[in-house]
Amino acid sequence: MFFEGSEKKIEVVVSPKAGSLRDLGKEFWSNIVKYGQAEIISAISNKHVDAYLLSESSLFVWDNTFLMITCGKTVLIDAAFAFMKKVKPNQIDSFIFQRKNEYFGHLQKSNFFDDVKKLNQVVDGVSYRFGEMDLHHNYLFHLCSPFKPQEEDKTVELLMYHIDADATAILRKKNQQKESVRSFLKLDKIIADFEIDDFVFDPFGYSLNAIRENNYLTIHITPQDEGSYISLETNLNVDVGKYRGLVEHFLNIFHPQSFDLIRFNIEDNFVSTDDYVCIQKNHQQLDCGYSVKFTQYVKELKAERKATKIFGENNGK
Amino acid sequence: MFFEGSEKKIEVVVSPKAGSLRDLGKEFWSNIVKYGQAEIISAISNKHVDAYLLSESSLFVWDNTFLMITCGKTVLIDAAFAFMKKVKPNQIDSFIFQRKNEYFGHLQKSNFFDDVKKLNQVVDGVSYRFGEMDLHHNYLFHLCSPFKPQEEDKTVELLMYHIDADATAILRKKNQQKESVRSFLKLDKIIADFEIDDFVFDPFGYSLNAIRENNYLTIHITPQDEGSYISLETNLNVDVGKYRGLVEHFLNIFHPQSFDLIRFNIEDNFVSTDDYVCIQKNHQQLDCGYSVKFTQYVKELKAERKATKIFGENNGK
Repeated sequence: MFFEGSEKKIEVVVSPKAGSLRDLGKEFWSNIVKYGQAEIISAISNKHVDAYLLSESSLFVWDNTFLMITCGKTVLIDAAFAFMKKVKPNQIDSFIFQRKNEYFGHLQKSNFFDDVKKLNQVVDGVSYRFGEMDLHHNYLFHLCSPFKPQEEDKTVELLMYHIDADATAILRKKNQQKESVRSFLKLDKIIADFEIDDFVFDPFGYSLNAIRENNYLTIHITPQDEGSYISLETNLNVDVGKYRGLVEHFLNIFHPQSFDLIRFNIEDNFVSTDDYVCIQKNHQQLDCGYSVKFTQYVKELKAERKATKIFGENNGK
Repeated sequence: MFFEGSEKKIEVVVSPKAGSLRDLGKEFWSNIVKYGQAEIISAISNKHVDAYLLSESSLFVWDNTFLMITCGKTVLIDAAFAFMKKVKPNQIDSFIFQRKNEYFGHLQKSNFFDDVKKLNQVVDGVSYRFGEMDLHHNYLFHLCSPFKPQEEDKTVELLMYHIDADATAILRKKNQQKESVRSFLKLDKIIADFEIDDFVFDPFGYSLNAIRENNYLTIHITPQDEGSYISLETNLNVDVGKYRGLVEHFLNIFHPQSFDLIRFNIEDNFVSTDDYVCIQKNHQQLDCGYSVKFTQYVKELKAERKATKIFGENNGK
């Protein structure tokens, strides 16, 4: 069975008059998550942020911001509408909704265009597609409202496809333990001082939330036969300072056949290794204050492979 | 509005006891095409083959073989079933059904897996996916039945994406004439001795069937904003002799950002130019006698582009 790893993501910043989003409590957020057709499976907290691990990805809640990422057949947009019943659009300063292109779109309960149609009934927004239709692409909708992101408000999304055989073997091992996955990810080399909440799914699949002060890092691994997929997202500054090299750290672990980088308010150019060629490069300054860069890198292929035999279980259900 | 250029294709070879497929007549084939939810718009013939231009692509009928290619929201599999009411599976020597990955799968009336499920109720078959799920890919189903293709039975499919701005301007020109498109394609340099049947669609789009003796060449052009797409298919031998260089001829006209080559029983390797890197390469020997090679080539991208703004009309309907 193919699992749709492609994520939907929403990031909302509320104005001070909305009060603290953390104060809404776990029950409120659990209910929002249910509207999206997912579930909270565990949670960690620190002074700044509550991090929820979901049955399909993650939710992070700060006082004035929440970030929810879901995959599979979830309906994230319904969670967004449920949230807007509590916090009205006039208390929302920034609203960004993203959807990565899906591979079994016919199994999704809605598509980006349906979602935007619904959104436009309650908020004014603008939509973009980053990436060409026939290659990896990412749809983005944002609220038409002037907004000035904080200086430290930077985000990197790293989406990796077709990781190498060694990584796959480890991640698909029966009864895999989370300690082994953490060690494989060499987390101690990169986020040793982070609090971690992780989960190994059955028969395979791994999710991780990591937090330290205002910062988060989240990883979701779908090591399926039909095409492995790993997404990583963080608000750590990966361009300068201690976390520079974070993207390369994970590329060196997974050796994906291709990967996308989506960067919000990160101006430096990622310098790829010789292993990859860049086949897409979009840059868009959004009116809501974020500069967004989308790039896709692919390995040049030397060796011929066999085609993939399709059995009954790859039936797209 | 996005038009789904991605093709479905069926090629059937019947045994001598089925009689001549051409003798079934235009009315029969017109009916078959209607089952697929397309229409015949014109036809040309010679001693060997009847070539029908369809509202969505093409149909070629020889005495013992037919080849039907359709795009958009057509349901080619229903045409195949209608055909098998007349010519029973036990009179079919070879049956190959292909479906290119679609970009608005949720708008299709069926998917490859549904189609195969239906096919498996009446014939025994095997399915493959050429290409990775997240890159260009092509599904193929074939009958499990020993078959020895004729020596000259070779096919090239050339699928081109994102042609350059000059080509787009010519192909999207209002009230474009077919003579101008033929001249732009420099057909006289490559198939001067072919009989041609072509059609310019409104507001744009161009289809061409060309035949000479047993040979055909068909081109379908969808020069839409959301992603231009051109497919070309021929049974000409493009590896040796007079038509060597045919693939390069069209690459030089369209300068696509990326292209796929699918080759049946063509053993030579295509030598790409320096402009492109190969990012996928599958080779599969099918039990039904065909050797199939799938390759995807992409241009390395140097220049940054803006994201694509999504307006109401790109609404995936």
